[in-house]
Amino acid sequence: LNDFAWDRVAIVGVGLIGGSIGMSVLDRKLAREVIGIGRDATRLQTAVERQAITHFATDLAEGVAGAELVIVCSPVDLIPSIVGQVMKHCPATAIITDAGSTKQQIVAEVARLERTLTGPHATFIGSHPLAGSEKTGVANARHDLLRGRTVVMTPSASTDHAKLRRLEGFWTSLEAIVVTMDAGDHDEALAITSHLPHVAASALAAVTPEEYLPLVATGWLDTTRIAGGDIELWRQILTQNRTSVLRGLEEFAKVLDSFRRAIEQRDDAAISELLAHGKQRRDALAD
Amino acid sequence: LNDFAWDRVAIVGVGLIGGSIGMSVLDRKLAREVIGIGRDATRLQTAVERQAITHFATDLAEGVAGAELVIVCSPVDLIPSIVGQVMKHCPATAIITDAGSTKQQIVAEVARLERTLTGPHATFIGSHPLAGSEKTGVANARHDLLRGRTVVMTPSASTDHAKLRRLEGFWTSLEAIVVTMDAGDHDEALAITSHLPHVAASALAAVTPEEYLPLVATGWLDTTRIAGGDIELWRQILTQNRTSVLRGLEEFAKVLDSFRRAIEQRDDAAISELLAHGKQRRDALAD
Repeated sequence: LNDFAWDRVAIVGVGLIGGSIGMSVLDRKLAREVIGIGRDATRLQTAVERQAITHFATDLAEGVAGAELVIVCSPVDLIPSIVGQVMKHCPATAIITDAGSTKQQIVAEVARLERTLTGPHATFIGSHPLAGSEKTGVANARHDLLRGRTVVMTPSASTDHAKLRRLEGFWTSLEAIVVTMDAGDHDEALAITSHLPHVAASALAAVTPEEYLPLVATGWLDTTRIAGGDIELWRQILTQNRTSVLRGLEEFAKVLDSFRRAIEQRDDAAISELLAHGKQRRDALAD
Repeated sequence: LNDFAWDRVAIVGVGLIGGSIGMSVLDRKLAREVIGIGRDATRLQTAVERQAITHFATDLAEGVAGAELVIVCSPVDLIPSIVGQVMKHCPATAIITDAGSTKQQIVAEVARLERTLTGPHATFIGSHPLAGSEKTGVANARHDLLRGRTVVMTPSASTDHAKLRRLEGFWTSLEAIVVTMDAGDHDEALAITSHLPHVAASALAAVTPEEYLPLVATGWLDTTRIAGGDIELWRQILTQNRTSVLRGLEEFAKVLDSFRRAIEQRDDAAISELLAHGKQRRDALAD
């Protein structure tokens, strides 16, 4: 009847990530329809105009009815309860995933909610597309946001293999590189590769007096760029990934203290060694 | 006889900055000739081919003879002694400047050297073009590197005003924005806007285990980019600007510790306030 890979994909929260996923799906003709779900009809209308979704619903139950795949792109604090709602209203054959920057707490809370459900229900598999920007909203969405980016999937031991493969196929069809990890391992790694850099960027920006701003150059601009990100989003991430972020901060403070000591003691060899260590790690990756 | 603003400009050290200045001067036809001075004839030949200089000398005395303007683009540790050498061999009417990232120690050491000279000699005025990159060498030089960038000039109370205006005119003709500051104020500001971000970027890269590198995204890449910079160059900068860098590290550690405490105590309001402070400072500047 049709040659789309998916009949109906539903996206809850059509912002930067949700909008970019929708655009990518429609651009590649991967789904017959992409329904956007949210509270703000005006914003959803913008998403239709930007071709991020084909139509929209402001009612969750209505929006997810008949969906084969539901992607929850809400702030991390809201994801578990929204996934719970989605499970009550979408087909039991559906796959539900998310785009949250933390995984352990989300996966655990969804598992707890699942235990309260009776009868067959949709399969939740956590995802985290490692793409984003300090810019937010569907206005900044791009159909190629995920191209060449990594998407981490965090299935549990009991996750249905066929569903996992199907979800993997979805991300791969957006030209993302899929990595499968334990939710806890994901959070430990992301604390270092994403959450700690955010705190550092914010602290660097904060210690810069306003009168020094005319003296910044590309170094400061690059290093502090992510400090412009959404406050509430990052507050939730830092809170959800508390333990790993605190461990990251501790490691970071140790290296900074080694720098302090080396500079204080005019220990040229130690300063060079510290700089060399950072450079070696950075140079391992292209830009 | 000619309508060039400068007859002969000499550049000591034709790397990224020196090469970019030369390219910009020649591109705008601001000087009849730009002579590059260095030790490596092969590299200088590359600079000629890239149209960063018109010809070159491997002998400093020969290179600066007859120059109206000499720009010393060497590593900060070498600048004072090179300026001292230049003063002995260039016309007494010449202006000598530099492109070093620190200013106080350079200005003080040059002043000390000047007191040992007898008779008239060229005028040294410290400069710092706030442009650069983790990429080095004349291969990465660009004729527009300084366009729209700030150049800080750090004259002393005794600096000849006509010469100061003439040097200001030089930087302005490269489309740079000139700011005049006390050398000590420059170093205090740059400790925060440039040197501290470098240490932070290096420490962030260093705490990232190699096995996490496949999980980095644009946030980590932006935040750590400058960690790829030249080790010896940055070792010298951190050492020369020791006091201000240590004060910057202390301020930075305080904000990081506030983050740590707020996250540890699950103090949502405090986390949000810290993030808001950083965002406000970052948002004050466009990209």
